[in-house]
Amino acid sequence: MELIKKNRSVLIQAALGNIACDLSIENASLINVLTGEIYPASVDVKDGVIVRVRMDGEKVEIPSVKTVDAAGKYLAPGFFDTHMHIESSLLVPENFGKAAIEWGTTTVVTDPHEIGNVMGVPGVLYMLESAKKSPVRQFILAPSCIPSVPGIESAGAEFGAAEVAELMKYDEVLGLAEVMDYIGVYTDEKRMHDIIAEADKVGGFIQGHAPELKGKELCAYIVGGPHTDHEMYTSEEILNKRRLGMGINARVQTEKDARMFIDGMTQGMFTDTVALCTDDNFAHKVRDRGSVNIAVSELIKAGMDPILAVKMGTFNGARDQGFTDVGAIAPGYVADMQIVSDLTFVNKAEYVFVAGEMVVENGKYTGEPAGKAWHNAGDTINCIAVKSGDDFRIPAEGHASRKVMVVNEGYREDKLIREELPAEGGFLRIPEERLGELNWISVVNRYGKDTKSLALYRNFGLKRGAMAASIGHDCHNLTLMFADADDAYIAVEELKKCGGGIIYVRDGEVVSLLKLPVAGLMSDLPLEEVAAETSHVVETISKECGIEEFSLGSLIFLPLPVFNWYCPTDFGIVDGPRKKLVQVVE
Amino acid sequence: MELIKKNRSVLIQAALGNIACDLSIENASLINVLTGEIYPASVDVKDGVIVRVRMDGEKVEIPSVKTVDAAGKYLAPGFFDTHMHIESSLLVPENFGKAAIEWGTTTVVTDPHEIGNVMGVPGVLYMLESAKKSPVRQFILAPSCIPSVPGIESAGAEFGAAEVAELMKYDEVLGLAEVMDYIGVYTDEKRMHDIIAEADKVGGFIQGHAPELKGKELCAYIVGGPHTDHEMYTSEEILNKRRLGMGINARVQTEKDARMFIDGMTQGMFTDTVALCTDDNFAHKVRDRGSVNIAVSELIKAGMDPILAVKMGTFNGARDQGFTDVGAIAPGYVADMQIVSDLTFVNKAEYVFVAGEMVVENGKYTGEPAGKAWHNAGDTINCIAVKSGDDFRIPAEGHASRKVMVVNEGYREDKLIREELPAEGGFLRIPEERLGELNWISVVNRYGKDTKSLALYRNFGLKRGAMAASIGHDCHNLTLMFADADDAYIAVEELKKCGGGIIYVRDGEVVSLLKLPVAGLMSDLPLEEVAAETSHVVETISKECGIEEFSLGSLIFLPLPVFNWYCPTDFGIVDGPRKKLVQVVE
Repeated sequence: MELIKKNRSVLIQAALGNIACDLSIENASLINVLTGEIYPASVDVKDGVIVRVRMDGEKVEIPSVKTVDAAGKYLAPGFFDTHMHIESSLLVPENFGKAAIEWGTTTVVTDPHEIGNVMGVPGVLYMLESAKKSPVRQFILAPSCIPSVPGIESAGAEFGAAEVAELMKYDEVLGLAEVMDYIGVYTDEKRMHDIIAEADKVGGFIQGHAPELKGKELCAYIVGGPHTDHEMYTSEEILNKRRLGMGINARVQTEKDARMFIDGMTQGMFTDTVALCTDDNFAHKVRDRGSVNIAVSELIKAGMDPILAVKMGTFNGARDQGFTDVGAIAPGYVADMQIVSDLTFVNKAEYVFVAGEMVVENGKYTGEPAGKAWHNAGDTINCIAVKSGDDFRIPAEGHASRKVMVVNEGYREDKLIREELPAEGGFLRIPEERLGELNWISVVNRYGKDTKSLALYRNFGLKRGAMAASIGHDCHNLTLMFADADDAYIAVEELKKCGGGIIYVRDGEVVSLLKLPVAGLMSDLPLEEVAAETSHVVETISKECGIEEFSLGSLIFLPLPVFNWYCPTDFGIVDGPRKKLVQVVE
Repeated sequence: MELIKKNRSVLIQAALGNIACDLSIENASLINVLTGEIYPASVDVKDGVIVRVRMDGEKVEIPSVKTVDAAGKYLAPGFFDTHMHIESSLLVPENFGKAAIEWGTTTVVTDPHEIGNVMGVPGVLYMLESAKKSPVRQFILAPSCIPSVPGIESAGAEFGAAEVAELMKYDEVLGLAEVMDYIGVYTDEKRMHDIIAEADKVGGFIQGHAPELKGKELCAYIVGGPHTDHEMYTSEEILNKRRLGMGINARVQTEKDARMFIDGMTQGMFTDTVALCTDDNFAHKVRDRGSVNIAVSELIKAGMDPILAVKMGTFNGARDQGFTDVGAIAPGYVADMQIVSDLTFVNKAEYVFVAGEMVVENGKYTGEPAGKAWHNAGDTINCIAVKSGDDFRIPAEGHASRKVMVVNEGYREDKLIREELPAEGGFLRIPEERLGELNWISVVNRYGKDTKSLALYRNFGLKRGAMAASIGHDCHNLTLMFADADDAYIAVEELKKCGGGIIYVRDGEVVSLLKLPVAGLMSDLPLEEVAAETSHVVETISKECGIEEFSLGSLIFLPLPVFNWYCPTDFGIVDGPRKKLVQVVE
């Protein structure tokens, strides 16, 4: 599949030097991901396409419209992100692009299933619209699992075959995004079967997501359609999936990830089917560490040859999605390129070119700066399930203590762990001295239904106040972790007012608030502001919990019932492996 | 692009062991070309697709319809030939398939441009029709250059955009075959431009052929469309083409080829874009050495890791042509597989499976044996240019000697080399003692036109008689090499009688004759008979020339004006680099 149409006559004349090229990059150290070499070369571009690579001091016949002197620095293809959710950056597509481009990422394949869960097809179409102003090329895979597990949580939308078919009509939609309901696939359940059939009808790509699946069930999942994966927890799992023909989209965020992936990805001689992805990457991480370059840099730090790491982040990514004319620097390839001064990839790129357009110069995006972005996705927080702090308390008659389930324990041993709580003033209470060791966790419906869950969570660390977010994967009901029920109620009310966000309330006061008015998931502001506010929330919670760095993900992914854990949804607490509700209070 | 449509519901049930599979291969040493490993495994197949790979002693739940015990032997994907001309095997597609399948080749991508040159589109359609009875899956790339160089030779047909467009309608036609007129491409000449545009219209594959091309002309050729190549003469050329993004279809026939390709193909870390092809492979070579396995075995002999050689001959080949579900042994892949007892690949496969059908058992094709094949491509030799032996002589007045051009000399130095010949009885003669050191070479029109060429050839070795063939790339006029003009005339007459072939006539007698009645290019007989007759011709000529093994190619490729040499066509002798006729007699 070719990414762009080519006027061959023009390209031929440009390659021959009979007409001026649009761009020449002179004096580069070319990272050739086709052969695995680095050597001196110059590159000419016309109409967005690389038309000529000059070696051995060859000169252009006619000066190009623009010439960039790479001064011996490295010229690499632009990075290709095979799987990511832009919503996780807390930025809208336009502003995400204007930030990520500075890190050398030129193409992302996104799964807009966060906004899809909140707003359905119109939400996805908003992402497409906003993406048009992004310097990073954005493709979409149609969300496959909205909600992630039907019947045990409320979403703002449901995707069946009709919704997927509707999205498949758009040129920017390449296929089907991470098919998380792997049980639905390998049991050939009708919903997933029909959704996959829509992708098959148009020859669409089918992306997988099958954590810890193996044996005949994994084989059945693969023949059921999905044939790539990014959700793997051990090097054995990575190797097993490679052996069975799954393309690997390695989500490498940490040194530990890098070690695991290197172990699992490089056993045997061949890594053709290994690409990279960012999946979920918050604004402050984009600001501080970047995009696909994070994975590339961690792999290099952990010992991988830089050219191989770059290949995984470029050529292999493009091939993963079926593109044959992007991801390398050679004639006929789309001119997505970056100039970097070293092979660590921990810094921003110096120059970035997308289809031959210079979009980053001296590390700075050259287009219209990110500002307050257009959106049509506001007013999505419709909470009716809590009317006071008492709605975040479990009633108790008299002085009878009762046992309450601890959500984050017991599932590995397949048993419910409960803590006995004393009753006081008609409600069960966490004793003052145990606050932080125990907190309340709650998910509150935000789609106008009177549903919520409430249970205990161990070792979150909050000794006072309440944290709430209008992000709670994947349905994005309100997710709360709190010591104080009244603060929790205030947090909900504040989020209602501002259309969503992430908030920390203490003693009735708003201590930190990141507003996310776009579907309650994203800010309409540029990276710097969003990252600063995100950092503030993170630092506040870190301080309250007495930990070095609070991970936002440790809260907002808790409500995801596709995993094999106990999980809070607005219906109650879900037994992940069995996908059914459990009894919280004994 | 997927090779076969899949009923996912059935495949899922088969993978889970809920229904019986069609085939299980137990106890194999699986060659995994995805990871580069060999390990014990068993494989289950349903509806032509691999649904499950069992490891660690996993057993099937329900016995499969057929079970094959691999007894620990190697299980590899079937070989994939990225570029070949079936006509060169001298067999029709049906009989070629029944022979090549025993060597583990399961898919070939053919360029039927030999029969295309003789018969036009109907010839190509005959190949498609005959291929339907072949156990080897046969795809076609539409011939792009018929004739190879217009205006300096006569073919039986001419292909323009209309003919290519007509062929693109067929499902079995993947795109455009080797675009040999590389000058036409990089000068954007209208004929090639329009032909390539037809492939672009349907998103077709565009195969290249650009010997010794480099620099900006090669870049222009690539952006002009073709992006793979199999015509390379040095390891530097191979490396340069890899660097510039060309897929390599390595035609490895000899130890020397293998050394050159290993040198050129394995510089740098990556060989993703290197596949294998056979191009031209005669019947007796198929009988004695096989098909794609020849390249695999030579690469292994020359030191390449066997798993890498197998990957190039399978997975990389399939990817070269854009197929994503063939070329490896993993769930979801088409069940094209072979069982071999060692990793040399010099012998036939023990078992071969095409889409799960067992087509070779104990080294023997299991289907209806090859016999006299159907064809509708006879009666194509219409020679009117020679009416006696004197038509193969150059007239000379009196006793005046004259200088006659030696075809196979001088082109590297860009000068015509001529030999002075004495006149005798009104004609120039090669002196008796110089026969063999000098022979006559001639190309005679076979398409009803009164055109022919006649010149000298040095060191062919024929001391007497005449050799003639109705194969002469690519237009397939009659090609002759002779010591005796009267024998040459008889050879032509005999070929007219039998509809074409390869013949040696001595002292007025037919010494050896391989009949090729199908378009004058192929026999309708099975491999064994054709190979025996081919061997007889080869041995006869070898003996006459006093050499160890005469190479048929050394005669029948001489009339190919796409190369940069002096070349005999029915118009005269062509100056390859300038593509114009030269003066033969001074």
